[in-house]
Amino acid sequence: MLVEFGGTKVLCAASVQDSVPRWRRGSGQGWVTAEYAMLPRATNTRNDRESVRGRIGGRTHEISRLIGRSLRACVDYKTLGENSIVIDCDVLQADGGTRTAAITGAYVALADAVAWMRERKMCKGDPLIDSVAAVSVGVVGSTPLLDLCYTEDVAAETDMNVVMTGSGEFVEVQGTAEGKPFNRGALDELLDLGVAGCAELTRLQRESLA
Amino acid sequence: MLVEFGGTKVLCAASVQDSVPRWRRGSGQGWVTAEYAMLPRATNTRNDRESVRGRIGGRTHEISRLIGRSLRACVDYKTLGENSIVIDCDVLQADGGTRTAAITGAYVALADAVAWMRERKMCKGDPLIDSVAAVSVGVVGSTPLLDLCYTEDVAAETDMNVVMTGSGEFVEVQGTAEGKPFNRGALDELLDLGVAGCAELTRLQRESLA
Amino acid sequence: MLVEFGGTKVLCAASVQDSVPRWRRGSGQGWVTAEYAMLPRATNTRNDRESVRGRIGGRTHEISRLIGRSLRACVDYKTLGENSIVIDCDVLQADGGTRTAAITGAYVALADAVAWMRERKMCKGDPLIDSVAAVSVGVVGSTPLLDLCYTEDVAAETDMNVVMTGSGEFVEVQGTAEGKPFNRGALDELLDLGVAGCAELTRLQRESLA
Amino acid sequence: MLVEFGGTKVLCAASVQDSVPRWRRGSGQGWVTAEYAMLPRATNTRNDRESVRGRIGGRTHEISRLIGRSLRACVDYKTLGENSIVIDCDVLQADGGTRTAAITGAYVALADAVAWMRERKMCKGDPLIDSVAAVSVGVVGSTPLLDLCYTEDVAAETDMNVVMTGSGEFVEVQGTAEGKPFNRGALDELLDLGVAGCAELTRLQRESLA
Amino acid sequence: MLVEFGGTKVLCAASVQDSVPRWRRGSGQGWVTAEYAMLPRATNTRNDRESVRGRIGGRTHEISRLIGRSLRACVDYKTLGENSIVIDCDVLQADGGTRTAAITGAYVALADAVAWMRERKMCKGDPLIDSVAAVSVGVVGSTPLLDLCYTEDVAAETDMNVVMTGSGEFVEVQGTAEGKPFNRGALDELLDLGVAGCAELTRLQRESLA
Amino acid sequence: MLVEFGGTKVLCAASVQDSVPRWRRGSGQGWVTAEYAMLPRATNTRNDRESVRGRIGGRTHEISRLIGRSLRACVDYKTLGENSIVIDCDVLQADGGTRTAAITGAYVALADAVAWMRERKMCKGDPLIDSVAAVSVGVVGSTPLLDLCYTEDVAAETDMNVVMTGSGEFVEVQGTAEGKPFNRGALDELLDLGVAGCAELTRLQRESLA
Repeated sequence: MLVEFGGTKVLCAASVQDSVPRWRRGSGQGWVTAEYAMLPRATNTRNDRESVRGRIGGRTHEISRLIGRSLRACVDYKTLGENSIVIDCDVLQADGGTRTAAITGAYVALADAVAWMRERKMCKGDPLIDSVAAVSVGVVGSTPLLDLCYTEDVAAETDMNVVMTGSGEFVEVQGTAEGKPFNRGALDELLDLGVAGCAELTRLQRESLA
Repeated sequence: MLVEFGGTKVLCAASVQDSVPRWRRGSGQGWVTAEYAMLPRATNTRNDRESVRGRIGGRTHEISRLIGRSLRACVDYKTLGENSIVIDCDVLQADGGTRTAAITGAYVALADAVAWMRERKMCKGDPLIDSVAAVSVGVVGSTPLLDLCYTEDVAAETDMNVVMTGSGEFVEVQGTAEGKPFNRGALDELLDLGVAGCAELTRLQRESLA
Repeated sequence: MLVEFGGTKVLCAASVQDSVPRWRRGSGQGWVTAEYAMLPRATNTRNDRESVRGRIGGRTHEISRLIGRSLRACVDYKTLGENSIVIDCDVLQADGGTRTAAITGAYVALADAVAWMRERKMCKGDPLIDSVAAVSVGVVGSTPLLDLCYTEDVAAETDMNVVMTGSGEFVEVQGTAEGKPFNRGALDELLDLGVAGCAELTRLQRESLA
Repeated sequence: MLVEFGGTKVLCAASVQDSVPRWRRGSGQGWVTAEYAMLPRATNTRNDRESVRGRIGGRTHEISRLIGRSLRACVDYKTLGENSIVIDCDVLQADGGTRTAAITGAYVALADAVAWMRERKMCKGDPLIDSVAAVSVGVVGSTPLLDLCYTEDVAAETDMNVVMTGSGEFVEVQGTAEGKPFNRGALDELLDLGVAGCAELTRLQRESLA
Repeated sequence: MLVEFGGTKVLCAASVQDSVPRWRRGSGQGWVTAEYAMLPRATNTRNDRESVRGRIGGRTHEISRLIGRSLRACVDYKTLGENSIVIDCDVLQADGGTRTAAITGAYVALADAVAWMRERKMCKGDPLIDSVAAVSVGVVGSTPLLDLCYTEDVAAETDMNVVMTGSGEFVEVQGTAEGKPFNRGALDELLDLGVAGCAELTRLQRESLA
Repeated sequence: MLVEFGGTKVLCAASVQDSVPRWRRGSGQGWVTAEYAMLPRATNTRNDRESVRGRIGGRTHEISRLIGRSLRACVDYKTLGENSIVIDCDVLQADGGTRTAAITGAYVALADAVAWMRERKMCKGDPLIDSVAAVSVGVVGSTPLLDLCYTEDVAAETDMNVVMTGSGEFVEVQGTAEGKPFNRGALDELLDLGVAGCAELTRLQRESLA
């Protein structure tokens, strides 16, 4: 599926395998993981391909791990059975907030894959115990803003990613002072904004899956 | 730009740099190169990312080189000046003929980039001395066919890629016996088919650029 | 310098260079970066060396980036001049909280390096505009705890890293639901605990540097 | 065995294993593959070793694949049984046409290996259903030439590799416009030359194996 | 365990596994191996991490192999049973003679590991048939010296590493002319010095293990 | 040039460059280095290519360094001027003693290259201050033997490589207990044998260069 948030376009695709990584075999439990990547011209100036450089950069690693962790928060491994789902998130066009767009889209791809598995009786019930969505929020010129585009992102003093379940609890909160440190008041304001944004995205995910 | 041939979708993007690789510096001449890659879920079953494996596979290398060579056949390096153009061809969905679709789309992206450069007076004239298009043709069950889709491609006894200029000359001819060797008659028939296919694609490229 | 927090031992060493990375040259500004690594037997069961595997894992990348970002929050690049400081954080023994121990120790190594540079008149004033310290906090069995050791860390439902300046503002907040999602109340409690912990560490850093 | 064509010297060695790659196991069928490489001083100016650079270049990949494909055209996998043959083609000295020399020599090494296997009753009949030979042909200054040496190769406007079976059918035809595109007439002339050249090489292979 | 020789500090840690490398399985015999590495700031000027460069340097490889070979000289594989011991030697601070310090310390770590295994009845007797120690000796300004520190090492005309068993026999002798070649007399003098040095280290190892 | 010792065949080729590695620039001094490699079928059973594995093994690294060190013992860098010589030693066929054969052959290639440079007035005098040759000696079944072939090498209890100058001094002595440790008497006997072997090789080198 293709997720679009403003100028950001991420292609999210789920692949199902009826096996699990070696360390998981014989446990009766499944596994969910994600891989994030950007096309070289997703950004305004071209980035070298990581396959050509022969190694994955730290940022790519970090985001792939974040997406995987976020998705796993809504999965019951036992019900999934010894199956794996890999979610590929490939950024075709980047205009800020690619990692949160990827999480939000990856959940929809995951839900589709789970539905496909259930039709084929690959799992014994519904392994999805909740949904997951994410937004980026930030302080730009002392104003808290939801869903920064690239120019806002660059200008942001503080940048925060909020990942929440559909039932309104936190899965991950990552706030970073880009320019200068922030105080508790700013943190609380950003959290409020993030909570509202995630609730709205949860609604859109439900519509898209219905 | 997104090229679609049947179920095959390739995203072709050109990036312009006002410099050339080291071995070319001071020559007054430009350079054109291409990079081809497939998203992991472009095919029906998922392929591992080459960035994760840490090395580019032989097939990827081979196709990137073919696209670059094909494009360079219609470029006058002197007129291009000491500028480089990289064409990224990323296969979003693969259903046969991805390399020829990539060449055909890459030419359009190249022509767009050259137009953009000429507006900015980056080159002294038109560095494009011709156009380039490519088709795959093959013999399936003794019938020569144009533009094989994936199931035909797998069934093909002979597979041929024909790359031609808009003025009707050959840039590259690659015929491979997949199943059993082929004779001169079959080769001639496939060439005829390829010539006709390239002529039609040249027409479509002109329309798309107009 | 060797930082010890409970069973965790991290060797932090600063290296000064009178040059900056290429993208920074001519800017008149300096750069601070960090590299984190674990010895193979820092943990209870041996981990393969990343040099032997030929690539750095995602976790190592992620932590190196976090340490670098945290340190840069207290540095004025202009005053530093075109000099670089690399902080190496090598975990000799790991018992939970290695990344926050590394940040706290890295600041002390950085302050030592800056003092050394100032003696040699390598910078025009004090490039350190604040100090930085970090703690890990977590919810174990519904009780919020400061500075988790390894067994607590494994048992934690929520795990949070708080990085703060000596003046009491946030540099980075990373809260992750390991077991199950957490609500706003738990988040607030963990933040309170983190704020108190960082204040105490700031005091210890000052003593150590005095 | 050492193949020499003019100044080109290629060492071709076959290695037999009584197993097949994982994806082939249990099929009852064998596999034939090839690896091509150049010694660093095979050419006039030294090339860096690919082992030192840590990655195989596109050209090496492309040629290894071509040799493997060509050899497989004359092998019956069923008769070969679940055995593998790897042909190593190492260029000791390069003076044009190394890939076609490698194919021609690789076939002789393959035939030797098959004879050795048949003596040991490793296969149930003759897995070689034909022979394979290859030549390079090209247009230099508008004259079609067989078996280009290095200086001719560099000067060639069109370069074509023709791989044929001993029974006179095509396995692979690769024609590339180095300088300027070529027309159907030139293509036909080059094919005629290639057909004659391959027939002569087939005769020499038979003599060498007798 | 931490070995210190003058300014040289090496951390030696043994890890026991109840399995052996694939090529050793089913032989009833064990295996002992070693990995050597230097922290980036072990030396006076920082060295890049080998994990960051993505490959292990020749010197590291060479020393890891030497340590492994030396340790294996005092091990009876049959008595060890199908178990492996890996000794990690990480140089925290380097001031000459790191490889010989590593061997001497690695033996003590090995002996500790063997004692631990014998308590757990993992082997059927004592797999250690002797002990192993090593010293570096050299000629500095025509004077033979034992245990060179870094400044002496740099100034040495000849550098020799002597590895001996506790019973006084040679395991490895490596003499290298750094500046100018040496004659038989100098070689003999260095050997005498090495023999005496190893005997003294054997005594210290026994004390440390008692 | 091709060196043959019994069944061992090593191709040694020197390449001259009128530049030096970066760390040597501006010193007025040259550099000599060597690269050793084995073809995959040099041995009786095929070894994987190091280029395919993507990394150079420890043994290859170790031998390349030994050859380089040995050659540098007879070179006067000042007279060589800011030029580099790389000696490639590629083992076509291995039957014991490949590293010592490589050193002995590499010296001849080096002397040829130096003669070629002197003809072209690339250096101001003779940068070769001596010659270098090497032999392997070993104890097989308690008998000391010169120049072990592969079956002897495998059976050897002690293996020693002796590298000497033409004037009869030691450049490198490496004795390794393969099976069981050796005493001073055995060491002395092996050295005597090595000294005699190197003297004979020095004579052969002179003949070959005359």
